[in-house]
Amino acid sequence: MSQAALDYAQAHQTDNLNHLVELLRIPSISTSAAHRADIVRTANWLVARLQQIGLSRAEVMSTAGHPVVYGEWLGAGPAAPTVLIYGHYDVQPTDPQEEWTTPPFEPSVRAGKLYARGAVDNKGQHSIHLAATEAFFRAEAAPPVNLKFFLEGEEEIGSPNLEAFVRQHIDMLGCDAALISDTSMLDAATPAIVVGVRGMVYMEVEIQGPGHDLHSGQYGGVAHNPLQVIAEILAALHDGQGRVAIPGFYDKVRPLGEEERAELNRLPFGAEALRQEMDVPQLWSGESGYTPIERTGARPTLEIHGIRGGFVGEGQKTVIPARVVAKVSMRLVPDQEPPEIARLFERRLRELAPPTVKLQVRILSYANPALIDREAPAIRAAVHAYQQVFGAVPVFLRAGGSIPVVAMLNHILRVPVVMMGFGLPDDNVHAPNEKFDLDQFYRGIQASICFMQALASMQPGRV
Amino acid sequence: MSQAALDYAQAHQTDNLNHLVELLRIPSISTSAAHRADIVRTANWLVARLQQIGLSRAEVMSTAGHPVVYGEWLGAGPAAPTVLIYGHYDVQPTDPQEEWTTPPFEPSVRAGKLYARGAVDNKGQHSIHLAATEAFFRAEAAPPVNLKFFLEGEEEIGSPNLEAFVRQHIDMLGCDAALISDTSMLDAATPAIVVGVRGMVYMEVEIQGPGHDLHSGQYGGVAHNPLQVIAEILAALHDGQGRVAIPGFYDKVRPLGEEERAELNRLPFGAEALRQEMDVPQLWSGESGYTPIERTGARPTLEIHGIRGGFVGEGQKTVIPARVVAKVSMRLVPDQEPPEIARLFERRLRELAPPTVKLQVRILSYANPALIDREAPAIRAAVHAYQQVFGAVPVFLRAGGSIPVVAMLNHILRVPVVMMGFGLPDDNVHAPNEKFDLDQFYRGIQASICFMQALASMQPGRV
Repeated sequence: MSQAALDYAQAHQTDNLNHLVELLRIPSISTSAAHRADIVRTANWLVARLQQIGLSRAEVMSTAGHPVVYGEWLGAGPAAPTVLIYGHYDVQPTDPQEEWTTPPFEPSVRAGKLYARGAVDNKGQHSIHLAATEAFFRAEAAPPVNLKFFLEGEEEIGSPNLEAFVRQHIDMLGCDAALISDTSMLDAATPAIVVGVRGMVYMEVEIQGPGHDLHSGQYGGVAHNPLQVIAEILAALHDGQGRVAIPGFYDKVRPLGEEERAELNRLPFGAEALRQEMDVPQLWSGESGYTPIERTGARPTLEIHGIRGGFVGEGQKTVIPARVVAKVSMRLVPDQEPPEIARLFERRLRELAPPTVKLQVRILSYANPALIDREAPAIRAAVHAYQQVFGAVPVFLRAGGSIPVVAMLNHILRVPVVMMGFGLPDDNVHAPNEKFDLDQFYRGIQASICFMQALASMQPGRV
Repeated sequence: MSQAALDYAQAHQTDNLNHLVELLRIPSISTSAAHRADIVRTANWLVARLQQIGLSRAEVMSTAGHPVVYGEWLGAGPAAPTVLIYGHYDVQPTDPQEEWTTPPFEPSVRAGKLYARGAVDNKGQHSIHLAATEAFFRAEAAPPVNLKFFLEGEEEIGSPNLEAFVRQHIDMLGCDAALISDTSMLDAATPAIVVGVRGMVYMEVEIQGPGHDLHSGQYGGVAHNPLQVIAEILAALHDGQGRVAIPGFYDKVRPLGEEERAELNRLPFGAEALRQEMDVPQLWSGESGYTPIERTGARPTLEIHGIRGGFVGEGQKTVIPARVVAKVSMRLVPDQEPPEIARLFERRLRELAPPTVKLQVRILSYANPALIDREAPAIRAAVHAYQQVFGAVPVFLRAGGSIPVVAMLNHILRVPVVMMGFGLPDDNVHAPNEKFDLDQFYRGIQASICFMQALASMQPGRV
């Protein structure tokens, strides 16, 4: 039934690659003020592309921050299901710059892999659905379902304006299911549907000690060095069992049922493979009592991302810095609530901070955790699509990452969110040399076509 | 006897200020490769100035690093004492740049204070002796003592080539006493002679975790975050009593005698004044059992200067960094030996580092601690000079800072080293808005004249 679309996509792989390469050339780094124009350029590029594909509506919609790109085509009629496809067109920063083999915004294909910042996260993955939609329009007159594209520009900075946007446009975004490709398969032969995402709360901690930088010779011994203070505070945030040492932190964590634990641990999630993938001497034992797959997907964690202050250049400087800032995030699982966790974090830090310094704790962003009902028809359509294209039943996963929009769409629009990803574990997401295997990209397009078809044929009305 | 020189210096304050301003305009930051040409420019400027003053020899002498400026005048004859005046013409970096009221290399006089990087540390302080020497040449035909100027360009990077230079030029540098102005008075009315300096060993610690940066969502819980590892290691380097928690660290510390403790603690070294000077909510209690003045001068300390790695920019990035580098220095007191302390430090770090990471420990530089005999004639000449100009008997101090050359000259040339400084505690040494009070500068010139005169008249031959 969708064979013509599948054939069309197969015949136009190079065109689809070229479109993606064009999109990847624009350095849409959302966290950097210097790239604001690139963000706008990317949004405009996407609107033009949506129009070219054949959508009836395509526009840049403003928010308090970076704009949303919205497109829709409702020509399948009210009896057909409506799918909202979410993606994000912003990308992570690229530092450390010197570790990239080829420049991050000059896409390069080597050994069947496309290297560029955003190749998989997320330009490559949402381009899959643009290509699938185009295949339907060109080869079969029209897609079998109504489609809405919802592409944001602030995912990598924690989607600060997304919730307001969704709440203000509930009717526009209304759908029967949401589809997001921003996750990975276990390997090229094992598709995975993510049914849980961790939430997150990203904090900034500022310690102000002396009013100005001091010389360690003159003041070493009487000045409480803010770097020592922050090291001691951060060290105290884990206990000897790898648990997060914040009172109340685990109180609302939904315990893992025996059945889900058994299912999770049946996954081919080898510790040795993980060790090689991370290239570490040894895995961290982490929170005691939990396996690696449980720790990365179904248990909360706390990570330090950076400590600013003092002297870190070439050579040496004997400074006691006046002020240091640490960036710390916590990954959360149902039913932890980000604002409450932020409060517990701040309370713990106030207990730990000595009276020799001033402490400030700021929330930079947060996202709710979510769990999706795996019996939803749209999930079953995704299972079917993966089976058809990859020849394997997908596994159900709980992902470690946070996709703020998942909880929002699930809770606000009250629809199942299908997280159907085509990345691979070694894609270097958020790291130098990010890549997307072109086989995954091309098969993803086939799977997207199959998903739309399966959803349309699954039942006559709502899914 | 030296009244003519004193009068001359008094009448030429503006000239001396102008010379200093010219010297301060050259950004001779020794730690930065970008400023190598400025280092050379500064050395050449000083040679020209020494020639202009009237020294019989003045030249730039190369080392494996930044050059030494050497000048001498031996016209007082073999019966007169010879004074070796040491200074350093390199300066600290200037970050954080934005906290300077006026640019660090555009000297600015405000309310009788000269603001610039290097104003007091050390261009302003060694310029005092250039001006005093010039006053003798212009007003009295010649100085009453033989003079050798020894100005290095690597003090702020730990003087890596100084010891080799001194050992290779023992004859050239031979003298009866060394004079160094690189310290502070207690306040404008209380001169101080430093009779002890702390040594230092500056270490760099590198923790390599994963082979590349990781995404905290995907790997948080199984990757041992190098920032967490370094925070835990650094936190473990002090115990609950503020002591440095490195086994063997205190073994060779010469205990403070009751008499010296009593003398040190009679100094007007108020905790509240210190608190205000540092602008902190509260002094750090530091090593238990010792007073603030003991902790900053007569006891060893350990300070963290910076932690590089991860993301510290504007906004947020959820990275687990592959590698972090911490800069740590330890201030040492007699009879701690820097290489041994470096070994103990590394041994402790190897005990603390978990098997999930690779650890590298590097020594960036070190300096020996020193104690000077306070009965030496040159020390008595300095006491006399301070009394004449400032009207007060100087106090004897143990300084917290490290001046590598002090131990070298003391041990290699076997001469007393007179540390006669004219800085003030609020000079913002190594910090933004470094300044030198012009009163201190002008009085310093008078005191230098008096010192040379006192030394010459103290005894006919050797001092």
